[in-house]
Amino acid sequence: MKSSVDKLIQRLGYKFTKPDILHQALTHRSVGYPNNERLEFLGDALLGFIIAEALFKQHPQANEGQLSRLRSLLVKKESLAELARLLELGEYLSLGTGEMRSGGHTRDSILSDAMEAVFAAVYLDGGIAAVSQLVMRLYGKQLQKHNPEQVLKDPKTRLQELLQSRGIPLPEYGIPKTCGAPHEQSFRVFCSVAEYSATTEGRGSSRRRAEQHAAKLMLERLKEI
Amino acid sequence: MKSSVDKLIQRLGYKFTKPDILHQALTHRSVGYPNNERLEFLGDALLGFIIAEALFKQHPQANEGQLSRLRSLLVKKESLAELARLLELGEYLSLGTGEMRSGGHTRDSILSDAMEAVFAAVYLDGGIAAVSQLVMRLYGKQLQKHNPEQVLKDPKTRLQELLQSRGIPLPEYGIPKTCGAPHEQSFRVFCSVAEYSATTEGRGSSRRRAEQHAAKLMLERLKEI
Repeated sequence: MKSSVDKLIQRLGYKFTKPDILHQALTHRSVGYPNNERLEFLGDALLGFIIAEALFKQHPQANEGQLSRLRSLLVKKESLAELARLLELGEYLSLGTGEMRSGGHTRDSILSDAMEAVFAAVYLDGGIAAVSQLVMRLYGKQLQKHNPEQVLKDPKTRLQELLQSRGIPLPEYGIPKTCGAPHEQSFRVFCSVAEYSATTEGRGSSRRRAEQHAAKLMLERLKEI
Repeated sequence: MKSSVDKLIQRLGYKFTKPDILHQALTHRSVGYPNNERLEFLGDALLGFIIAEALFKQHPQANEGQLSRLRSLLVKKESLAELARLLELGEYLSLGTGEMRSGGHTRDSILSDAMEAVFAAVYLDGGIAAVSQLVMRLYGKQLQKHNPEQVLKDPKTRLQELLQSRGIPLPEYGIPKTCGAPHEQSFRVFCSVAEYSATTEGRGSSRRRAEQHAAKLMLERLKEI
C-alpha cells in the first residue's frame, strides 16, 4: 500500500529538512507509537488560524457569523479528506493491519486527520510562511467557492432553494412531538423529501428550532450544507 | 467609564503603529459599527493556535486528548475574562448605553471577546511574533498551573478528589429517570453536594454518561473544571 513518499513531497511542493516528521504525520495510531495524533492536534489549530485569517482579509464586509460558518465549511472533515484525496495521501499512510484490511486509507476521518498532521509537519519543519503557502495553494479553489451572503441563510431556506434549483417538490415537515416536562419541553419534527425517500428528525426547544435542525440534517444528507 | 488607553498599552507592553485597531478591539457591538466582532473571530483562532503550539512543545509526552483538554481550560471564556481583569480591560471598553448601565464591562463574555479582539489587533499591527510574546507573557502562570495527567481523569473521579481534598462528604447521585422510546432512551441523573446545597442534572445515553455529565456540571459550578 505505501508508495515512495517522494511523489507526495513533490505534490506538496515543500522540501523537508527533516523528513522524519512527514513520516510521523502519515502514521495512523493503529500502527502504535509514535503516530500522527499530536501533530493532528497542532495542525487543526494551525489550519483554523490560517483559514480564519484568509477569510478575514478576503471578506472585509462579512460579519463574524458569516466568517465562522465559512470556516467550518472549509475545515470540516469532508473538505480536508477531499484535499487529501487530491494529494493521494491515502497511498502513503501507514496503517495497522486491521485498518488496512477495512480500507482505512480511504476513510474521511483518517484522511482528514493525516492532512492536518501534514500541515503541522510542514509548519514544524519550515515555519508559518511555508505552511501558509501550502494551505493557500491547496485551498485556492475552495476559498473562492463560497460566499458570505449565501452561508448565513437559515437551513430551511437553503433546503428550499436547493430543492427548487433541482426542480424537486418542497420538503414536508411532520407534526411535532414533544418530550419532557411542560417547563422544559423539547420538540421533535420529521423532515421528508419524497423524491429522495429521505427523512431526517430534528430536535429543539421550539417547533421552529426542531424544523431548522431537521432541515440542517437533510442538507447534510444531500451533501449541500 | 473609558480611561485613557495609554495605561492599557503600557500593560500590554506593545506599542501600536496604528492605534485605531486597538480602539476597534475595545468597541463592543452595542456601540454600532465598526466594532470588535470580526477581530474577536480572528483573535479566537489565533489564540487557539498559539496555545496549541505552546502545549505541544511544553508537554512532549501528552497525548492529543490531554492537549485538547488543557487548551480548552486555557482559552475558555472564564480564563480569558481573568486575563482581561488583570489588564483592567473593562475600563477601556466602549459599550452602548444599555450595556454600560447593566455593568457590561464586568461581564465575562464581553471581557473575553474583547481580550481575543486585542490579541487580533496586536497581530494585525505587529505580526505573529508580537502577539505570541504577549500571549505567552499573559498566560505564563496559567500554562504552568495544569498538568496533562490531571486533566484527563473523568469528571466523577475529579469531583470526588476535589471534595476529598476539601474534607467534604462525597457527592450523591440520584436514581436515573428515563426519557424517550426504549430503543433511543436518554437518562437523567441528579448529582448533589449537600455541603454546598448544590444540585446539577446530567443527561446521557446511559446511566454512566448521565452521571459523568452531572459531575462535569458540578465541577463547573464549583469552578474547578
